[in-house]
Amino acid sequence: MSSLWSPDLFDIDEYVPGEQPKDKKYIKLNTNENPYPPSERVLEAIIAAAGDGLRLYPDPNCSELTEAAALACGVKPEQVFMGNGSDEVLAMCFRAFFTGRGVLRMPDISYSFYPVYAKLYGINCDIVALSDDLSIPVEKFFNSQAGVVIANPNAPTGIALPAAEIGRIAENNPGCVVLCDEAYVDFGAESAVPLISKYNNLLIVRTLSKSASLAGLRIGWAIGDEKLIKGLNKVKNSINSYTLDSLAQAGAAAAFKDSSYISACCAKVAQTREHTSERLKKLGFELTDSKSNFVFARHSTASAETLFSALRQNGVLVRYFKTPRISDRLRISVGTEEDMDILIAVLERILESL
Amino acid sequence: MSSLWSPDLFDIDEYVPGEQPKDKKYIKLNTNENPYPPSERVLEAIIAAAGDGLRLYPDPNCSELTEAAALACGVKPEQVFMGNGSDEVLAMCFRAFFTGRGVLRMPDISYSFYPVYAKLYGINCDIVALSDDLSIPVEKFFNSQAGVVIANPNAPTGIALPAAEIGRIAENNPGCVVLCDEAYVDFGAESAVPLISKYNNLLIVRTLSKSASLAGLRIGWAIGDEKLIKGLNKVKNSINSYTLDSLAQAGAAAAFKDSSYISACCAKVAQTREHTSERLKKLGFELTDSKSNFVFARHSTASAETLFSALRQNGVLVRYFKTPRISDRLRISVGTEEDMDILIAVLERILESL
Repeated sequence: MSSLWSPDLFDIDEYVPGEQPKDKKYIKLNTNENPYPPSERVLEAIIAAAGDGLRLYPDPNCSELTEAAALACGVKPEQVFMGNGSDEVLAMCFRAFFTGRGVLRMPDISYSFYPVYAKLYGINCDIVALSDDLSIPVEKFFNSQAGVVIANPNAPTGIALPAAEIGRIAENNPGCVVLCDEAYVDFGAESAVPLISKYNNLLIVRTLSKSASLAGLRIGWAIGDEKLIKGLNKVKNSINSYTLDSLAQAGAAAAFKDSSYISACCAKVAQTREHTSERLKKLGFELTDSKSNFVFARHSTASAETLFSALRQNGVLVRYFKTPRISDRLRISVGTEEDMDILIAVLERILESL
Repeated sequence: MSSLWSPDLFDIDEYVPGEQPKDKKYIKLNTNENPYPPSERVLEAIIAAAGDGLRLYPDPNCSELTEAAALACGVKPEQVFMGNGSDEVLAMCFRAFFTGRGVLRMPDISYSFYPVYAKLYGINCDIVALSDDLSIPVEKFFNSQAGVVIANPNAPTGIALPAAEIGRIAENNPGCVVLCDEAYVDFGAESAVPLISKYNNLLIVRTLSKSASLAGLRIGWAIGDEKLIKGLNKVKNSINSYTLDSLAQAGAAAAFKDSSYISACCAKVAQTREHTSERLKKLGFELTDSKSNFVFARHSTASAETLFSALRQNGVLVRYFKTPRISDRLRISVGTEEDMDILIAVLERILESL
């Protein structure tokens, strides 16, 4: 510890991303990456941008990319804010809309980065418990003081609310922002983006990491009322005018223009999710109704921690959260059918040996 | 203005980057970009990384890149923190070391982003006037309350302090961080990096934007004592675990391994700076002793604002700051010899016509 730090830094427990071990080759089902390659058009656009132009600053406003994103999402460019991954966009949302406004409401089980952002900006949190079936109790998110942050589908449960329920939360939080993180929406849930014209306090955050197989490119964006987007730009331009490099801007614009390829990959993942769920049930797992690119599974007899370690030893990485209420479950990303064949075969062996 | 914003957001005047107009082709001498192309090895590394691997998250610790940077800078990897451009790194330094520690000291004329960061984090500033010759009055930066931020060479003056003077500032600010922004150091100034082992409170920030012709790739880094680097990682991991995409990491690592190409480009820029300075003096300009990739010039009779507009009309972009004490000067980036021939020819015409 260093006395040269800002005093509140000592209290911050930073976010810990899923492991990326290099000791051997694993079936990686631990960080919700898409098993299919990115669109060829994305790679072509990146290669075309990898030239002399890199000596120049990128477009600070990401104009072409913003237009492509707006077109793909059915909104106006003024309703879109691009950032360096949805984590950065979420952090800027916390700074722009939740700082200095009182207590922020969020679920007890959700993306574990939310309380970290809150701590960084000195925001107190009102933590609402999920229902016993791990669904979001919608009405408990009404009338917050500083705003609401939820993920839909929620992580790591995978459970999705209908868009109309997101609308009800926005309607019942007048005067503060409802931030809805749709990182996993493309795998079968209903997006609340069409509601932003109805609710000027509803802000949606999306990412190309999962749906477009571009976790390595770091592209996230927010969609909402123009005034919210202006607030985000004010924060961004107080930190870094150029958050997206020229290559990422070019690649991401191409991704938004190749939505049919991306939809096809997402559909394959959703199909494999359903198939895998059936197979896991036969092995004695109980699962949530996941609409994302992972399943959230609890075994009837074997502990999650035991299964996590045994899977790891057998070359399969999944995610285990040593957290109250969910420490009996594994979050397993959906890979290819072949990846899941290996998962099932390894699980069968492990369960037999227990 | 929106009541949905965090209340302090209304008071923030964000940073305004130099213009990137698209209406016609300009000789761009306004944003200190390097006129020479990036290293071929950088482009090759990016193209090699533009493949299926983009579906995976990048290395959150930028391990390979950090090692390459450490080797190039003659320090240990534990003394290096990589970020998405030096602007982001600077912002994280302000959060990690200057927030909640009292009043921060900085020069009245320097990089105009510093007061913006301070405002974002609620840091009060003690603004020290540069000497009449626009040099930094070193002793006035001793014994600050919360720390010191300076650029060396300073911007937009281009004037450099010897590294030993940076050391004196660090020595005379015990218990708080001295942040030295060396964005322009590679064009002829002396780096204070060798002093980080002597002063655990000295933190140096660098960038590949100018020296390595990679403004479009967004690579900045900090060099300092391991405890300072740990503080920066704590801030980073409270905002965004993956600030550098896979392409930027690959390209930047290649740049650090091709330092001879970069040095040669910087030497050419420095030579052109000296030649251009002589030519500008003959046209009636007085110049600071710039050690950076720009000159800072005041004409004996013509106003800077007039020259700025006339140059723009004639297809040459330079930077003009409507700021007290320097509104009589132009900051002119150093381009190729051919760029500067055009600048001089256009200036001759303008000055004749006034």
